[in-house]
Amino acid sequence: MIRFTLDKLEALMGRVLARCGVEPSIAKHVVGGLTEASLRGVDSHGVQLFPHYVEALRAGRINGAPHLRFTKESAATAVLDADHTFGHAAGAVAVDRAMALARQVGVGVVAVRNSTHFGAAAYFGLMAARHDMIGFASTHATPHVLYPGADRPTLGPNAMCVAVPMAGEEPFCLDMATSAVTFNRLKLVKEAGLPIESSWGADADGVPSTDSASIAHLFPIGGYKGYGLAMVLDIVCGMLSGMPVGPQVSRMYGVPLSERRFLGHVVGAVAVSAFEAPEVFKARMRAYCDGLRAQSMRDEMGVAMVPGDPEKRAEAVRRRDGIPVAPELLARLEALDAGAQA
Amino acid sequence: MIRFTLDKLEALMGRVLARCGVEPSIAKHVVGGLTEASLRGVDSHGVQLFPHYVEALRAGRINGAPHLRFTKESAATAVLDADHTFGHAAGAVAVDRAMALARQVGVGVVAVRNSTHFGAAAYFGLMAARHDMIGFASTHATPHVLYPGADRPTLGPNAMCVAVPMAGEEPFCLDMATSAVTFNRLKLVKEAGLPIESSWGADADGVPSTDSASIAHLFPIGGYKGYGLAMVLDIVCGMLSGMPVGPQVSRMYGVPLSERRFLGHVVGAVAVSAFEAPEVFKARMRAYCDGLRAQSMRDEMGVAMVPGDPEKRAEAVRRRDGIPVAPELLARLEALDAGAQA
Repeated sequence: MIRFTLDKLEALMGRVLARCGVEPSIAKHVVGGLTEASLRGVDSHGVQLFPHYVEALRAGRINGAPHLRFTKESAATAVLDADHTFGHAAGAVAVDRAMALARQVGVGVVAVRNSTHFGAAAYFGLMAARHDMIGFASTHATPHVLYPGADRPTLGPNAMCVAVPMAGEEPFCLDMATSAVTFNRLKLVKEAGLPIESSWGADADGVPSTDSASIAHLFPIGGYKGYGLAMVLDIVCGMLSGMPVGPQVSRMYGVPLSERRFLGHVVGAVAVSAFEAPEVFKARMRAYCDGLRAQSMRDEMGVAMVPGDPEKRAEAVRRRDGIPVAPELLARLEALDAGAQA
Repeated sequence: MIRFTLDKLEALMGRVLARCGVEPSIAKHVVGGLTEASLRGVDSHGVQLFPHYVEALRAGRINGAPHLRFTKESAATAVLDADHTFGHAAGAVAVDRAMALARQVGVGVVAVRNSTHFGAAAYFGLMAARHDMIGFASTHATPHVLYPGADRPTLGPNAMCVAVPMAGEEPFCLDMATSAVTFNRLKLVKEAGLPIESSWGADADGVPSTDSASIAHLFPIGGYKGYGLAMVLDIVCGMLSGMPVGPQVSRMYGVPLSERRFLGHVVGAVAVSAFEAPEVFKARMRAYCDGLRAQSMRDEMGVAMVPGDPEKRAEAVRRRDGIPVAPELLARLEALDAGAQA
């Protein structure tokens, strides 16, 4: 598999987006969000999504030259109308505002309306955590999650990120879907010949299944708990922003790419300094994480990690060796680039 | 099993706490929190805890006449020093402040330090949700949760509640521990002769077990996801408040009741009106929940519920028939009451 340097990928995607008329202030977050996810090893939300986004842009789903505006504001809150632009840019503008509010009053919460897929929630949580804030980001998503016992899905594998600053290394970063697994993960597990648990998903009729080929819907983590968490994320992302919720949330794939998504997100920032001296807090965070990493495992070869550790390992390798790009993706990127340069 | 009316239980507990010198402003939340949990069918966090609390009060762990004070304040945040009083009262004072802040700036977040066990998180989340706010409450707890593969527990089954107002009925209320199950639930499952899943807990050496008698530690929901969530709750409850975290969190049982707990909590309130007209939001919430309740189930007898529904059913029955009190608890309550009236 070929590997791209970060610079080369950034330049390629930048050229394609510019050619499509995407404003530089928007394009930088599409490129930034996708390359950060790929660098961190989160390939499902990385560069591999780029060709899909370009198609959605050309077909009219995504608006590359939006009129972003805050439609409602208070001292600690705001609502951003994203005018159907890339969710990456909408989320970044929202978290910038949340951070500005948190600097003033300790906390900022911003709901985003009329948005599209925003990629990895970590992109937004990490932005806040790099400025001594606890960052929060969440989105709802295409309904693929089944209420245990139901016969069709009603909620998305709605996702959230909480990122927390710590001394001497990149932030703690929990970025999770509320489904037990994702379709991507199911595919990888099957390819690796590992067993699939019946609590992960169900077939088209809702019957729990351990055959990845027949799994059509996903179960939530922890039964009613994960379903409840997915509802909470749907409620804040969809109802604080006035967007559709539950089974009415639009689909990412399998529908015309000219159709708008009408997604909502919520991002938040809490200034650590409103509660504790940031240096004290960050030193405690580091000691806490180091303590959990050093905990005793039953298997001597076992390694305990904290959220964000696998991504930090991947990033160290990929910054050195480049970002792997599969042949099929390479061909699509080269075709897009050739079009951009024509 | 005998049943107590709400009035009778409130009066009995009020007499006992008054006799122990607990200030009325504190006692009302101990009584309110415990009876609300019992009414809602959450017996693990209800009146059955009352004798334990009275012992902890007499032994010096809990301070019945505290000097509560806010040690740090901003326009959207505060830190409350609970002076080792009942967590029920500390949480209620904190959520009152969070609601006052949210009325002013849209959001309020309050961290509590030097607290004790606060009972059911729902007590605080519901307070905010009854005033057209999204209520959040969280606490850390005695370390009983095992990192998958580790040989001893490092985190508590840290708990959170999110409560959301809806039209025409009590709020949506997700109140959950981040462990797959609780010890209480394990006991009930065993008594009912139902199977125990190996993903629920482990024996004293950390080996996953399906024998409830040998389960010493609990697993988190969804593996690393639940562990990560438990860390997030530990971080906000313990580090924003300057309290111990992780394996250093104090134990509720098995240690002298004279020992202070030094627990932290975080509560929050988000004013719906900062984002959306409350009447619109609450009507949407109701339609959303009714839609999910009406979803089609594979088993025709199956019933879909949303968070808070089981508790609403229990409350309807218990308001009519009274709160069941087991014989052993009855004897302890009567002894406490006799002491109070002596």
